[in-house]
Amino acid sequence: MSVSQGPPALNVMPAASMAAAGGDTPRRPVERIVSGGIVVTMDPQRRVIADGAVAIDAGRIVAVDSRERVEVAFQATERIEAGGRTVIPGLINGHAHLPMTLFRGLADDQNLDDWLQHTIFPAEAMNVDEAFVRCGTRLGVAELIRGGITTVCDMYYYEDAVAEELAAAGLRGLLGQALIDFPAPDAPDHSAAMAAIHRFVERWAGHALITPAIAPHAPYTVADPHLIEARRFADDRNCPLVIHLAETRHEVEESLRLKGRRPVEHLASLGLLSELMVAAHVVWAEAHELDLLREHGVGVVHNPQSNMKLASGVAPLPAMLARDLAVGLGTDGSASNNDLSLWEEIDTAAKLHKLISADPRVVSAQEAFEMATIRGARALHLEERIGSLEVGKRADLVVLEMNELDQMPLSSIYSALVYATKASDVCDVLVEGRPLLQGRRLLSLDAEAIQSESLTLRRQVIERLALAA
Amino acid sequence: MSVSQGPPALNVMPAASMAAAGGDTPRRPVERIVSGGIVVTMDPQRRVIADGAVAIDAGRIVAVDSRERVEVAFQATERIEAGGRTVIPGLINGHAHLPMTLFRGLADDQNLDDWLQHTIFPAEAMNVDEAFVRCGTRLGVAELIRGGITTVCDMYYYEDAVAEELAAAGLRGLLGQALIDFPAPDAPDHSAAMAAIHRFVERWAGHALITPAIAPHAPYTVADPHLIEARRFADDRNCPLVIHLAETRHEVEESLRLKGRRPVEHLASLGLLSELMVAAHVVWAEAHELDLLREHGVGVVHNPQSNMKLASGVAPLPAMLARDLAVGLGTDGSASNNDLSLWEEIDTAAKLHKLISADPRVVSAQEAFEMATIRGARALHLEERIGSLEVGKRADLVVLEMNELDQMPLSSIYSALVYATKASDVCDVLVEGRPLLQGRRLLSLDAEAIQSESLTLRRQVIERLALAA
Repeated sequence: MSVSQGPPALNVMPAASMAAAGGDTPRRPVERIVSGGIVVTMDPQRRVIADGAVAIDAGRIVAVDSRERVEVAFQATERIEAGGRTVIPGLINGHAHLPMTLFRGLADDQNLDDWLQHTIFPAEAMNVDEAFVRCGTRLGVAELIRGGITTVCDMYYYEDAVAEELAAAGLRGLLGQALIDFPAPDAPDHSAAMAAIHRFVERWAGHALITPAIAPHAPYTVADPHLIEARRFADDRNCPLVIHLAETRHEVEESLRLKGRRPVEHLASLGLLSELMVAAHVVWAEAHELDLLREHGVGVVHNPQSNMKLASGVAPLPAMLARDLAVGLGTDGSASNNDLSLWEEIDTAAKLHKLISADPRVVSAQEAFEMATIRGARALHLEERIGSLEVGKRADLVVLEMNELDQMPLSSIYSALVYATKASDVCDVLVEGRPLLQGRRLLSLDAEAIQSESLTLRRQVIERLALAA
Repeated sequence: MSVSQGPPALNVMPAASMAAAGGDTPRRPVERIVSGGIVVTMDPQRRVIADGAVAIDAGRIVAVDSRERVEVAFQATERIEAGGRTVIPGLINGHAHLPMTLFRGLADDQNLDDWLQHTIFPAEAMNVDEAFVRCGTRLGVAELIRGGITTVCDMYYYEDAVAEELAAAGLRGLLGQALIDFPAPDAPDHSAAMAAIHRFVERWAGHALITPAIAPHAPYTVADPHLIEARRFADDRNCPLVIHLAETRHEVEESLRLKGRRPVEHLASLGLLSELMVAAHVVWAEAHELDLLREHGVGVVHNPQSNMKLASGVAPLPAMLARDLAVGLGTDGSASNNDLSLWEEIDTAAKLHKLISADPRVVSAQEAFEMATIRGARALHLEERIGSLEVGKRADLVVLEMNELDQMPLSSIYSALVYATKASDVCDVLVEGRPLLQGRRLLSLDAEAIQSESLTLRRQVIERLALAA
């Protein structure tokens, strides 16, 4: 896989198609053509083009068609030869906490309370500052790009620094600055938190890559008046509202005890549900609550591996899909998963719900792959821009190796993508038409510098936790 | 990672240790030293050596110690520099059907009956011959080696050809020639099947890499007299008996209906349970049945991803571990998983049972990794030979990349191995002291030839199925 400069070699264009195009019709110049290979569009017809091509200009897709037709109509400045490979829309990771990548493996196999109270919260209090957030974000972004993820929905502190790092690396993000009712690393109180959110959303509104959002942490960590304030803010700015929702059984029990309503019911009663909301987890929701989410156009993000590892439960995914809910997939943070590979989430989602439903026909490979692409775009309310290879959409796409021995022989393309493809099969990644990975090499990030700074901060985390113990 | 010829460079051995060794004490010559890196021994003390080394001679491990002490005591003809990497015992895949790798993705997301009756059985009847078995085995073995698996327990038809392919590729196998009460591709009836088993076990008994076994398919496909005959055969030859057991709820219901006993109870009543048995799946077993398996020393192989994808159910793993049952991990065949990565099984086993038990402390990372190594060796009754890095055991080991961005930062070694390491992190693989993978390159197999022959056979499978439809 290589990106070559200059005009396309004529020998990739059969003479017959030259004639069909009239021969003397000038070809439209474009920045780039990704040429050859199986093109999995995820468009409304779910077209899969056996020998396809994608033409890209000014960050947008200008053609998705057979290689022959694209090569006849367009002339590219740069090319990616994808013959023998597979071209897909970039994957969408709907829920992450990128700076927490520095906490990977810090504490595993503990119950959620021990994990949060005795490790994660102290580690955050002692370590999380802007430099930490920048380093953890770079480390996480490198893993995302190498794994074929082109859009991430993140929520954390110092999200302005997260946004700067994503923009510099060229990754697309829906980024939520946190709102939480206890002193946060970047905001001592509620008014400081709201001020930071104001500045953050103001600064990034309209950016090509970054969609800023307000991120009230969860119904159980943000008081009702502050939740209502967050909804008003989101409405005023027309920005998304990202939240953790109905993740654990304990959350439901406490919500019933304190408010007399289950978490989704409670947010509905506060008037919080809307087409601007992205709700992570939604493990503990009953049929009428799924109906509420559907009616209000809420996007939902399913995190199967995190929910398994923390023993949170199983989200009612088949019931969500039956309602055509906008549900995507997420990895959650690396402190609770412990990686950012969406390929494993796709594979796990397809398998887990077969098991839980006792029906191997549930969540087909195609449905699972949709959640990582076009349905995941709907979950983030970004389906006008991303999630499929269609003319006019942003040029976010991934070229995959498909001839590795562990993928052969290729049968159904969705089966191969869901059950046999790994992050390590990702060769090339483009976001907004810009190449971020080329022949498995990171172009916009310095891998060695990230390794070195991560190790330094890692030592700091361990030393400070040891001192405090 | 490179294997250099000649004596070790002196600069890897600190002067202090030279003095400690007396300086003039001659070092014992050995074939190979794997030097440096974190050595995860899985020995009875579960030693993890921060800067360790393994000395190897005549296919056996002759030392596992700090790098300094090994370098002082031994002089190697060949070396593998593992500094900055991690050295582990080779992984043990306790249940596979390697030739079925050619059926990868042939049919997914169907119920088990449709899948078996309408796709797998017809596909086998129309395609499985010795050439098919050889090609599928080579394809599967390539994936196993690339993924750090050094021992596989396989059961299929033409197992003699499977054994020849494994021996040629240098992989260790516990291989069961199938016994089933319907005409098989390699045996028209029961006496032909038993004759093939006789020849197979006779031929491979005592082989350094291959442990031959008899493999009655399952209690529901082999009549009771034939099961008893298989047990007598195994006893006479002191060879393992490999079987599918209690995989689905349907199997339990039919066993109760036809025999008045559950599958494990039924085998116990026939006198089949013994220290020679390796039972795959054991999803549907109650406490008293687990006690029976433990009392009789039966090895059990858990296949979490296959059981999820086929909606078979969840094996009672925590109850097995509580009884210290010899339970390992398997991928099952690529027709039902759809890969041969044991890394994903380890990760899934650790996460799945947390979810099912609603307790994130269940199946710790270390317990999960034990199932892929030393406990998996016990499941195959091979713990005297493999499963840990200990003096006297066979030199089956794997060198892993541990500095990839998606593994950083390294915290607990077991956490990193279980939750963040992938098949693509495997750099070097040795079996019986012989390097099979070096710098991610296959040494004993021709990857291009395997690709090409797999594609040819793939076309044949599809064409024959289409013709029959």
